[in-house]
Amino acid sequence: MTGHNRPNDEFKLIRQVTAMMKRTRSDQTLVSFGDDAAVYRPSKEQGQVVTVDTLVEGIHFTRRTMSPFQIGHKALAANLSDIAAMGGVPTYFLISLAVSPDWTEQELKEIYAGMSRLAERYHVDLLGGDTVFSPHQLMISITALGEVNEATLLLRSQAKVGHKVFVTGALGLAAAGLDILLQGSPLDVDQSLFFPLLKAHQEPEPHVQQGQIIARLAQNEAVALNDVSDGLASEANEIAQASGTDLVLEKEKLPVQEELLRYARKRGKDPYEWILKGGEDFVLVGTAGPDLFAVLSKTFSHHGLSLYDIGRVEPGEGRVWLEDNGKKVRLEPVGYNHFQKWGH
Amino acid sequence: MTGHNRPNDEFKLIRQVTAMMKRTRSDQTLVSFGDDAAVYRPSKEQGQVVTVDTLVEGIHFTRRTMSPFQIGHKALAANLSDIAAMGGVPTYFLISLAVSPDWTEQELKEIYAGMSRLAERYHVDLLGGDTVFSPHQLMISITALGEVNEATLLLRSQAKVGHKVFVTGALGLAAAGLDILLQGSPLDVDQSLFFPLLKAHQEPEPHVQQGQIIARLAQNEAVALNDVSDGLASEANEIAQASGTDLVLEKEKLPVQEELLRYARKRGKDPYEWILKGGEDFVLVGTAGPDLFAVLSKTFSHHGLSLYDIGRVEPGEGRVWLEDNGKKVRLEPVGYNHFQKWGH
Repeated sequence: MTGHNRPNDEFKLIRQVTAMMKRTRSDQTLVSFGDDAAVYRPSKEQGQVVTVDTLVEGIHFTRRTMSPFQIGHKALAANLSDIAAMGGVPTYFLISLAVSPDWTEQELKEIYAGMSRLAERYHVDLLGGDTVFSPHQLMISITALGEVNEATLLLRSQAKVGHKVFVTGALGLAAAGLDILLQGSPLDVDQSLFFPLLKAHQEPEPHVQQGQIIARLAQNEAVALNDVSDGLASEANEIAQASGTDLVLEKEKLPVQEELLRYARKRGKDPYEWILKGGEDFVLVGTAGPDLFAVLSKTFSHHGLSLYDIGRVEPGEGRVWLEDNGKKVRLEPVGYNHFQKWGH
Repeated sequence: MTGHNRPNDEFKLIRQVTAMMKRTRSDQTLVSFGDDAAVYRPSKEQGQVVTVDTLVEGIHFTRRTMSPFQIGHKALAANLSDIAAMGGVPTYFLISLAVSPDWTEQELKEIYAGMSRLAERYHVDLLGGDTVFSPHQLMISITALGEVNEATLLLRSQAKVGHKVFVTGALGLAAAGLDILLQGSPLDVDQSLFFPLLKAHQEPEPHVQQGQIIARLAQNEAVALNDVSDGLASEANEIAQASGTDLVLEKEKLPVQEELLRYARKRGKDPYEWILKGGEDFVLVGTAGPDLFAVLSKTFSHHGLSLYDIGRVEPGEGRVWLEDNGKKVRLEPVGYNHFQKWGH
């Protein structure tokens, strides 16, 4: 086990990286780098949200479809999306990086640069982490922290009969974007025509603002919320199961993005395969009472944000149905996402 | 990237594992498994401590020298030790496990069982995590949370001239234990004779109680504290550098464990190589004023805990010296530990 250490210029790298990251929470941060552990002061009366997600090279990302900058972005985005799905305000993150020898210092810096830009956008501070050697592949494990009002926890178990099902953005884009990138040149796709699909795969935006608006307006009303990391079918089933109700998704209400439709046509594929089963879109799916939904709808619109009514909660045993022309078919919790989160 | 998912019985495993873990903080835990992120309520007026450490198979552990149970124990112990070095009360932990195909379900369960026993001992609750597939090796990334009194942060930058240097236990044991296990049978070592060395490598005990006593008694006095994860030479240099003072370690005061001495003799090795440079002992090294040290000494003794005066803080430029028979030689920050922690 001796001699596997990263060289000393790792520390130079870490110094450069931490210098690159903006500090926005200096009043709350008591100890960050340079000690055994980090210490911060939580805001008064706020629940602390915490989540961890690991991305493994060759499983969750490859350099074939994403640049190091995009890999950094996406690793942090996946975690911020989990905080968003709790309606939380993200505050801090920690990185544990296991680096294999085929990654250059420049590539590692770009990973951090990708995280740094996103962190700045959401006022999230890098609080600590560690770097270890990995013989075979890069792994990025991120722990994200955030704060939430204890009174309005947006749990997936809170779907109520008569409530509407909503999503905060178009679906299936990331899966279609990955499909484009995996096809490469043989398909002769002008990638610039499908920019939104590529961006959804490479630089997804976590719906942090959306989650916070929902939490703020929900107050004491029951709202279920998930992020669509594993695909709509999978996440809707989680809500249905956790709530002990059925969810009916109305096919004609599902938002269909124009580029997705065009690309599906070009590929001779059913776009609903991606819309229903494609993961990593990081939009939010949830349920809310009709009155609250109306208020949410108005507020989202006011902020230039999307909110789609895509179905309804019905009495049942925790299953999901896709309604198409008045006919309901069972939507199984299948997806082709690789993320496996506990409790899913 | 499709088809690399862990089979569905992963979820069965997770259910079994979470059922195995005791819950001790149900009043503080608002959301644990089964949602996008976990939520807990911090204790009033307490700083939140957080640390992350990743162990990679083949780098930080192998099944050759440790059982899965011991690997689980050690992964959590390394994190609790970081909390201990801040004088914190550990509260929660999250696990991110990247599992390669050569690990059986039974072995994974044993990893969790090893964590579970240690978690119970320190009243630490498993709060969440994720499990992903890894093509080549097992990786365990643990995030540990804890609480600390903001008024008494035990920072490595707080060594003061005239203060004593102390350690909370014997050193070099884990490195010697690993040496035994790597020799295997050719050396014809009766391993039972060297049980404390093996235990130090395989099931190290984090000095959580010791850290808390130090934090409680330090109050407003400056105390520097580190855990000896990277070896005494390395950690003492960190304290010296961060504090801008020199540390003088007095060789004759360094505690030498009997089994270590016997094993070094058998191997024809200098035991001080292990004592000074061996990592992963997870005892604490620190500095305190003479009056406080006297109080600490008495309290440690009262609790049946060890505390050794091993040297002194002197004016200087952040270097460490080993004093032997009145002669001082420079002790460089070298060790043969593989853990690379930011800020080290």
